Amino acid sequence: MEVQNVLHMVQGLGENSYATNSSKQRVAIRKVKPILQETILDLYSSGTITEGTLGIADLGCSSGPNALLVISEILDAIDAGSRQLQRPVPELTIFLNDLPGNDFNSLFRFLPAFHEKLKRDKGERIGSCFISAVPGSFYGRLLPRNTLHLVHSSYSLHWLSQVPPAVTSSSNKGNIYLSETSRALVVEAYLEQFKRDFHSFLRSRSEEMVSGGRMMLTFLGRRRADPSTKVGCYIWKMLAQALQDFVSRGLIEERELDAFNLPYYSPSVEEVEDVVEREGSFYLNRAQTFQTSWDGSEEDEEDDEGKEKNISIGWKVAKVMRAVAEPLLVSHFGSNTALIMDEVFQRYGHIVAEHLSRERTQDLNLLVTLTRKEREVL
Amino acid sequence: MEVQNVLHMVQGLGENSYATNSSKQRVAIRKVKPILQETILDLYSSGTITEGTLGIADLGCSSGPNALLVISEILDAIDAGSRQLQRPVPELTIFLNDLPGNDFNSLFRFLPAFHEKLKRDKGERIGSCFISAVPGSFYGRLLPRNTLHLVHSSYSLHWLSQVPPAVTSSSNKGNIYLSETSRALVVEAYLEQFKRDFHSFLRSRSEEMVSGGRMMLTFLGRRRADPSTKVGCYIWKMLAQALQDFVSRGLIEERELDAFNLPYYSPSVEEVEDVVEREGSFYLNRAQTFQTSWDGSEEDEEDDEGKEKNISIGWKVAKVMRAVAEPLLVSHFGSNTALIMDEVFQRYGHIVAEHLSRERTQDLNLLVTLTRKEREVL
Repeated sequence: MEVQNVLHMVQGLGENSYATNSSKQRVAIRKVKPILQETILDLYSSGTITEGTLGIADLGCSSGPNALLVISEILDAIDAGSRQLQRPVPELTIFLNDLPGNDFNSLFRFLPAFHEKLKRDKGERIGSCFISAVPGSFYGRLLPRNTLHLVHSSYSLHWLSQVPPAVTSSSNKGNIYLSETSRALVVEAYLEQFKRDFHSFLRSRSEEMVSGGRMMLTFLGRRRADPSTKVGCYIWKMLAQALQDFVSRGLIEERELDAFNLPYYSPSVEEVEDVVEREGSFYLNRAQTFQTSWDGSEEDEEDDEGKEKNISIGWKVAKVMRAVAEPLLVSHFGSNTALIMDEVFQRYGHIVAEHLSRERTQDLNLLVTLTRKEREVL
Repeated sequence: MEVQNVLHMVQGLGENSYATNSSKQRVAIRKVKPILQETILDLYSSGTITEGTLGIADLGCSSGPNALLVISEILDAIDAGSRQLQRPVPELTIFLNDLPGNDFNSLFRFLPAFHEKLKRDKGERIGSCFISAVPGSFYGRLLPRNTLHLVHSSYSLHWLSQVPPAVTSSSNKGNIYLSETSRALVVEAYLEQFKRDFHSFLRSRSEEMVSGGRMMLTFLGRRRADPSTKVGCYIWKMLAQALQDFVSRGLIEERELDAFNLPYYSPSVEEVEDVVEREGSFYLNRAQTFQTSWDGSEEDEEDDEGKEKNISIGWKVAKVMRAVAEPLLVSHFGSNTALIMDEVFQRYGHIVAEHLSRERTQDLNLLVTLTRKEREVL
């Protein structure tokens, strides 16, 4: 599986598209908004933004409304920062990055309206805002040296550049990611792949960013003491269970399921800190965690109607996960599998609902902010 | 009709797509290759390329193989230039521009293979080549100031930003573009729109380009003495004739056809020179014309089999023109019209073949190269 070619959210604007089922990712974007504002104000007052062009990148932008929501929030914060410090807003260049299989077409359709709204809301205060798309893997270089002042990435860095080579049909039989039955070799291989990938990510950005540039990263993680169980892993384990049912029914071959492993890793804060320190180009300003619900609801409504509520949440989680995982599944199991995806995710929603009736597991999100060191310091 | 939203080539990779039917445009790209090489060598030896990043834009890149063909040819010429002058190749940033409705997705799918081939062919000589996409109208600003050293545009500048407001159902009845029956008011309105658009194009580029930067533009034109007849107009007049047949059959409403006018203008060399001079930011290095066949065949095979040959050429012309015009037609006449497009372009191919049996009309192409003046000179 060539991750670069098959990892993308479900395209278009239809019922099962990522554009329609990305509320979970939107909640995370909303939750970190105050930190984004703080980061941009910090960048403004540090003197890193001088004249010329302010370069901003959103890495793993996906398509659908979230991509432009991030840009709107960044522009709001820049506008507020420039007013607070009474400085003019420089020319802005915004680079939207994702893998070449991302649905950039859908995203671009919204741009004329986005620019009109920007003009209406901000008038002349934000004079020039140039938006371009950079298709490619953020584990390699994407842009020329010294181009970026601000780098943002949300819900992308938990995707690896590849399934770790040591994770194979025989080494991780019955699993599609880490679970409590995964062997130490598999746990180790996933961690090593994350370390290598995140190191490449930081090294590439260190060349593209100006000294003093800021980076803010949000992605899924887990607790150190809990390398392969509920938080960060169980949501995938239930998908393995759903797929297993289709193996029993002869609709998916067992060896195909054994051979399927996710190019995914949810690290702990300590693992992230370790890579940042070893890579050496960035100061780590902040590394914290926060929780979000599996389905993207913002409130924790424990007192709700019980079983029916769980079924409805299970269904929502299934939609959210389908928008993320369907292209990977269909690419691996073959295009015929597209016909059973409705059933697979119905089954999955059911399993999720059952789990939620026992325990309200949540996602653990990592929020990391970094500053590019002065090049002399290195 | 909002040109920005509806002007795009037929998407995807299917039988009627632009990707499959763009040989005509490819011929023009091939024909100007020596001038592209000369322009890049000239840019290299002028000292405009110093250190840092070399910015290159292809404006109106479309999708399909031509977009990457242009980039390949530019990279070949840069590679040759750097070897000839024994200078290292700087980091390259290539901006692919088209309107937001362009099929960028199809284009991006080819990028991983493109980068692999580049590495194979050029090895370490071209170290970093960053490709991004800039969706938007080139009649406005697309990029920050002083970003571009080389601007290329092929077969795009004959598309206007809008149908000239004075060209209406009543003023240009029976026509879809200029023809020998067009009123002076209509001829004048098209010319005025071209002047305004081309002026905006040059003014936007003058801000984005560095002093000494080079621009090379190829687009469809016509001879001065011939403002509204065969060359540059007749190919559209025959499409009007084909559509007229469907009015007679009650499949298209007459008032809809009267209301349809192309956002298109094929200028003369003198008209282009005039705008360049008035705008004032560029030296005009070269303005010349060359002919190409309507169907994209490279040879002039006068001695061929006559009628059958004309039918086959007519069919090819119809495919080429359909890839360009179908989205405009369907957007104007309504999505139901999509059902009769096969028939419309069959009829059109027949009309073209008949015309070719009387006269082998060709396209007239304009090739213009410009240099951005030193800012002090202005």
